[in-house]
Amino acid sequence: MKVSARNVFKGTISELQTGVVNAKVDVHLGGGDRLTAVVTVESAQSLELAVGKEVIAIVKAPWVMLMADDSGIRLSARNILTGIVKTIEAGSVNAEVTIGLPGGTEVTAMVTKEAVAELGLKPGSTASAVIKASNVILGVPA
Amino acid sequence: MKVSARNVFKGTISELQTGVVNAKVDVHLGGGDRLTAVVTVESAQSLELAVGKEVIAIVKAPWVMLMADDSGIRLSARNILTGIVKTIEAGSVNAEVTIGLPGGTEVTAMVTKEAVAELGLKPGSTASAVIKASNVILGVPA
Amino acid sequence: MKVSARNVFKGTISELQTGVVNAKVDVHLGGGDRLTAVVTVESAQSLELAVGKEVIAIVKAPWVMLMADDSGIRLSARNILTGIVKTIEAGSVNAEVTIGLPGGTEVTAMVTKEAVAELGLKPGSTASAVIKASNVILGVPA
Repeated sequence: MKVSARNVFKGTISELQTGVVNAKVDVHLGGGDRLTAVVTVESAQSLELAVGKEVIAIVKAPWVMLMADDSGIRLSARNILTGIVKTIEAGSVNAEVTIGLPGGTEVTAMVTKEAVAELGLKPGSTASAVIKASNVILGVPA
Repeated sequence: MKVSARNVFKGTISELQTGVVNAKVDVHLGGGDRLTAVVTVESAQSLELAVGKEVIAIVKAPWVMLMADDSGIRLSARNILTGIVKTIEAGSVNAEVTIGLPGGTEVTAMVTKEAVAELGLKPGSTASAVIKASNVILGVPA
Repeated sequence: MKVSARNVFKGTISELQTGVVNAKVDVHLGGGDRLTAVVTVESAQSLELAVGKEVIAIVKAPWVMLMADDSGIRLSARNILTGIVKTIEAGSVNAEVTIGLPGGTEVTAMVTKEAVAELGLKPGSTASAVIKASNVILGVPA
């Protein structure tokens, strides 16, 4: 996939709920991992989205928030993907953290180095990637 | 709060408007500071949001735009939080800018170093943090 | 414009479709370049948006994804702005990439250095800036 986003997931639409303006699209990523996207009905029609169709789900790393294992909160965001920290690549202010999900999908987040320290993240830590459904872009082969 | 986001605000819901798909949630942060979030009705119900309920409002720093005092424009974003620049921490490309609001709340934005220079921001400057309501994630204790 | 966002486009509203909650606003940027924004109806009314009105469209660089010329996919995002890479300014983890559109508009994206390498981007490359309509903030003079 020739896009700059760190997260480009291949999957299959498992459920599609169409409203008046928006459509909610559940995507199975394989290995049991899944992701929910919200796109406009116009986009859903234009891309001819349907249950069973193969799609790619795209999320830029700065749109992913990380949550520690023991946060004790429930969030309004639809996607709370829990896994194990695999790598942390720190820059001067930001750090790129990659989390491996149980099904084998890897999710990359761009967070501050400060956050990595505060959450005590290191390879092997359990953490969740939090992604708002409206921040997922869907794509299909042209 | 064990999340990577730089902005985690504790507050109380002061108003809740429920539409067909989305709900608009006004949160009082204390000291007169306030923040508006838009979440799906599904999330509002799942989190049992109601007026008077304590919530946390979460915003990642890259989702915050800064505006100088004298910009002379009105914006479509619902949250325009005006305060005083407290700290600026510059990296190689980006800088983390923290603004203190009148009520004591602090808001952190991730912007380019170029932007900091162009806006002439320094500790003590007046500036506004601009946050789209749809970029606020709400949370409640699990 | 005194805002931190790297992308501040002046334009004229060419089309306005008002729904129950959201309004879709097409903005002509000059030279044939255009951008679509989705804002709430409340914001559209408050800013008195109308066809022919001059507005500014604002997009932070981290909200812009880049796509290589030959990606072979169609996306749910409404704005796929194809042009030529003009400059790349790399930091330690991130890089700021500016793309010149045919009509003369310049769009800046914040992506990882890794992405720049993977997409083989360099000045002169053809690339598209992908922007979700809901990530565009509109403004009018106060």
